[in-house]
Amino acid sequence: MENWLVKRAKLNPNKIALILEHADFTFGELNSTVQLFASKLFTSGIRKNDPVALFSDNCFNGYVAILALQQLGARTIFLDTELSEKTLNYQINDCHPKTILISDSANDKELKNIPGNKLLMSEVLSLEPAKDYHFISEFNSSQIASIFYTPSADHNDTGVMLTYGNYFYSAMGTTLNLGINRQDAWVLTLPIFNVPGFSIIMRSLIYGIGVYLIDGFDIEQINKVLINERATIISLTPPLLRALLNTLPQGKKYNDNFRCVFLGTGLIDNWTLLRCNMLEIPVLHSYGMTETTSNISALSFNDAEIKAGSCGQPFFTEQIRITNINQDNIGSIEVKSPTIAIGYLNKRPLYLSRFTKDGFFKTGDVGYLDDDNFLYLKGRQADLIYSGDKIIYPEEIENIYRSVNGILDICIVGITGPGKKQLPVAYLTVKDNAFLTGADLKEFGQHNLVNYQVPIEYRLISEFPKTTGGKIMRNRLFNLKYKLI
Amino acid sequence: MENWLVKRAKLNPNKIALILEHADFTFGELNSTVQLFASKLFTSGIRKNDPVALFSDNCFNGYVAILALQQLGARTIFLDTELSEKTLNYQINDCHPKTILISDSANDKELKNIPGNKLLMSEVLSLEPAKDYHFISEFNSSQIASIFYTPSADHNDTGVMLTYGNYFYSAMGTTLNLGINRQDAWVLTLPIFNVPGFSIIMRSLIYGIGVYLIDGFDIEQINKVLINERATIISLTPPLLRALLNTLPQGKKYNDNFRCVFLGTGLIDNWTLLRCNMLEIPVLHSYGMTETTSNISALSFNDAEIKAGSCGQPFFTEQIRITNINQDNIGSIEVKSPTIAIGYLNKRPLYLSRFTKDGFFKTGDVGYLDDDNFLYLKGRQADLIYSGDKIIYPEEIENIYRSVNGILDICIVGITGPGKKQLPVAYLTVKDNAFLTGADLKEFGQHNLVNYQVPIEYRLISEFPKTTGGKIMRNRLFNLKYKLI
Repeated sequence: MENWLVKRAKLNPNKIALILEHADFTFGELNSTVQLFASKLFTSGIRKNDPVALFSDNCFNGYVAILALQQLGARTIFLDTELSEKTLNYQINDCHPKTILISDSANDKELKNIPGNKLLMSEVLSLEPAKDYHFISEFNSSQIASIFYTPSADHNDTGVMLTYGNYFYSAMGTTLNLGINRQDAWVLTLPIFNVPGFSIIMRSLIYGIGVYLIDGFDIEQINKVLINERATIISLTPPLLRALLNTLPQGKKYNDNFRCVFLGTGLIDNWTLLRCNMLEIPVLHSYGMTETTSNISALSFNDAEIKAGSCGQPFFTEQIRITNINQDNIGSIEVKSPTIAIGYLNKRPLYLSRFTKDGFFKTGDVGYLDDDNFLYLKGRQADLIYSGDKIIYPEEIENIYRSVNGILDICIVGITGPGKKQLPVAYLTVKDNAFLTGADLKEFGQHNLVNYQVPIEYRLISEFPKTTGGKIMRNRLFNLKYKLI
Repeated sequence: MENWLVKRAKLNPNKIALILEHADFTFGELNSTVQLFASKLFTSGIRKNDPVALFSDNCFNGYVAILALQQLGARTIFLDTELSEKTLNYQINDCHPKTILISDSANDKELKNIPGNKLLMSEVLSLEPAKDYHFISEFNSSQIASIFYTPSADHNDTGVMLTYGNYFYSAMGTTLNLGINRQDAWVLTLPIFNVPGFSIIMRSLIYGIGVYLIDGFDIEQINKVLINERATIISLTPPLLRALLNTLPQGKKYNDNFRCVFLGTGLIDNWTLLRCNMLEIPVLHSYGMTETTSNISALSFNDAEIKAGSCGQPFFTEQIRITNINQDNIGSIEVKSPTIAIGYLNKRPLYLSRFTKDGFFKTGDVGYLDDDNFLYLKGRQADLIYSGDKIIYPEEIENIYRSVNGILDICIVGITGPGKKQLPVAYLTVKDNAFLTGADLKEFGQHNLVNYQVPIEYRLISEFPKTTGGKIMRNRLFNLKYKLI
């Protein structure tokens, strides 16, 4: 297909493409800005197919840099700005970027000691534009558009390679489900260095819609665009949604054009959903991961009541099946789709091992499809606890315990007990002034759970290791110091 | 991607898929009906990848048969029911169908003497369903979904092969431009054996929208669904639009949900557009051909006034360029896109000859793109008349002459005059009671055209040779008997 930004600037030169706190850019203006930046990047030596690592927060320069790297045909590796030096070092050694492009406003402390050809965006801006620069004329569907690292237990993170074709089909699946139209405008507050955030930039080009770019999770600014401006869709994670609801000014509602919260993977408590309902904020519960180019199913608000707890039907472009169905009628979730990542960087055998013989991607998640083809997620395969002839689904137990006053966060994992049988133990963080004993918590469990589900130990920790998206990294819990309560 | 009909029946089992004069079918019901028909076709011996020719009018059985052949994974060759025996014979000999599937309501007179394994749809219905039949699980993007023949001067028609991928991208380009939503319902009155008609069936599956199937161009029925029911879009050719306007009952308007007439390639006179405007019927002027899977650009009603005469901007999925630009700033229209046909049946060299070295498809049309990227069509390259150092664009002249009272249709072609210079002559049909002389017509031309554009001869014929779509086949004019007036 024709270069998306250039094409969109031809089709809708005067349509608003990007809305910042104090400035708007039409597609025509954005294209001019991006082309100038790209020609300066060309001066800095970046050429087609060069791997370039981007270290940027959600700032305007970062947005422009992402689009400029596309214009050059470079391969962008997105670095998570909140990672430790150790992890960043691994990723940079893995992808060997020609340049590490750094936004001036990002905190690059952890990057300081890592060698590499670093280039600040302000330095790029001071370069002369190259006369012999020309944008690439086409975005080929098999061309790699992004590399995102997904965390793993041993810090050997995996670089997931997604193509322009992946993003196009992802956008098509979403609009066939949600019906995006020209009046839509999407709020981008999720980090641009993860797929859910970055894909909003791609969708803006494909759909020709505006993006409200929010620098960091600036709650005041988000509320402003949702209440006073014409933002229609916002992508959020469950914790961010809760935070946003907590700060919604009394008596205020979102603007009349607001359509929905696009909620990423992760369980959301009923209390939050109830509040959304009362505030007339439709929530679209979705399911997806980096390897599927973000969401591949979503529960529409119309179905939210009768299909509570589901992440909806797989999109038209997605084929989802359940295999290895266990005694509880729950099995492995497998996906076949044009949105599946084209590969893992430098990890071909691992990539191939993720597929079945007939070409389905093994997500590593477990769940089930009901008779109406609605997907229910029951957690990660690797997190299940096999307690003798019973299977424990940790997230079910965690959801029950989250209603206990004083618990901040809780995570259930299995330890090996007598006869190789696994037993559930709880890791938890509590509020400062909370006083909870293991005995109390065990008693609560005995009243609200089946006996084999009740954790045998309660391990108090100071903080959970989390991904930038807010997901607890369960496989790192065993390394933590804890206090038995 | 997953089998489209099966997938859509899973996603929207209770949504209306097909509306006939006296019956409705949901996607669930349509799927059941189609699967039964497919299992009977399986009994008749049709298997995956078998070439099957379909000879059907716009009847319910034909609609079901098309979908059933897809379920079997057969290759459907669409025969135009209005073709002569000679042409049908050529096409059937070219594609060697395993079966010729014939709708009982189609007039198969011209087919009678052509040998082949013919099967009436009523015969299929009387077969037993096969127990070992199973629908194909996926529609691969490179799988051939249809073969349509396009006419050529020497009757050696070309079988254009379009894939499921072609149709998917075509549907995506259209919705990115037009913004199809779930409430839309498309009127299918164009023949299902041409791309513009057939692609409505495909879009119904992809978008999950309903189709009003009209058997033949039944004006009364069309007016009924446009006025009294919830039809929102209708695809028409210019002559059909004129016919429809002529029969719109006095004081009636189309239903409140009606969105637009999707008008196929072909010039439309200003008088008709003015009437549409007065009747508040938005017209979307489009451009496309069989090899591009129907429309690849469309002029939206918002732009209709300032861009009169244009067929709009190329869709997001389409790359259009103009090359070999001549003295009038008009050149060859070339297209690169995922909607371009995958091949010509048995005519690989001809197919390859239609592409430039850098992969653009040479449409054979001429035109220009204005500064805002709007496409203007000026006719077929082969129809241009090179009159010394001037170029004559026949359609311009024809449009001027169409305002002459008494002329039914007119076509300007070039004949070779002295010094190999080409000179324009007019072929025309006139109304029964019209009295027009060549001298009158020449005088009219001298007043309304530049001198070199005025036809030197006026050849009266009884009827124009036309494609089923209503297009005049110019290259067959020279074989006709005519009377000089």
